[in-house]
Amino acid sequence: MIRLALFQPEIPHNAGTLVRLAACLGFHIDIIGPCGFLLSEKHFQRAGMDYVRLADLHYHNSYEEFEHSLTEPCRLIAMTAKSGVPYTQFRYKAGDVLIAGCESVGLPTYMLDKCNHAVTIPMKSSARSINLALSAGIISSEALRQLNLQAAS
Amino acid sequence: MIRLALFQPEIPHNAGTLVRLAACLGFHIDIIGPCGFLLSEKHFQRAGMDYVRLADLHYHNSYEEFEHSLTEPCRLIAMTAKSGVPYTQFRYKAGDVLIAGCESVGLPTYMLDKCNHAVTIPMKSSARSINLALSAGIISSEALRQLNLQAAS
Repeated sequence: MIRLALFQPEIPHNAGTLVRLAACLGFHIDIIGPCGFLLSEKHFQRAGMDYVRLADLHYHNSYEEFEHSLTEPCRLIAMTAKSGVPYTQFRYKAGDVLIAGCESVGLPTYMLDKCNHAVTIPMKSSARSINLALSAGIISSEALRQLNLQAAS
Repeated sequence: MIRLALFQPEIPHNAGTLVRLAACLGFHIDIIGPCGFLLSEKHFQRAGMDYVRLADLHYHNSYEEFEHSLTEPCRLIAMTAKSGVPYTQFRYKAGDVLIAGCESVGLPTYMLDKCNHAVTIPMKSSARSINLALSAGIISSEALRQLNLQAAS
């Protein structure tokens, strides 16, 4: 299985949408605080719908708490616009943890330094960034595809 | 190249986010009206950001107008929760038009009847649906991956 971790997310709609995706596709999702909203707030709950209860969602007050929850050895894969590795060229492994940074600044350098690998969605040179929920959804889905971990249709 | 068509979208944030994705990844995007918002409205513009100007975006007042814009022969591929074809198993071709329905009811039967093929993102049996922007982003990205149409990194 894979895990998607959102590091200090700022926008409740993005996080809620990804919790919904995690419930639908069957991967774990972690939210690493502090984040810019309460999990009880209406924008998060509205985007996550009743999937918030269905999802394998874990909230951690800090990166240290999150790290403590990683009981098995695993690779941390940063999702960033700053890597030269296209997300489709990377070979994912079961147990990988995909980490997304916050919407305004992405993953800070000290978090990138903790990651074993980093992947990027190649973009036109005229563009800067893709919405966080879409980026994380696209990369998570590619990891599931490679690992044949898709839900039964 | 591929085209993503949104049939009568209702939620401006979803459409704006997908226009941003289209500008970043370099595919065409069509909005087929009537839709539940004006392209000038703030939620659409905020989600699309300055990418609305960069994107290869075409608005059509009706399906007939959209159909008229398809000057080359092409396949219409429905994105729906009702198909038994996983989106990763389908073989996309250059020129394919991927069509998403509106958020509340998906593609109506008369639109599904116009499509040559239909693909689905397999989901857990406990789940019903993925956010429209995420679904369309995931399937479009898989089509680009298969066709080696990703932007240079």
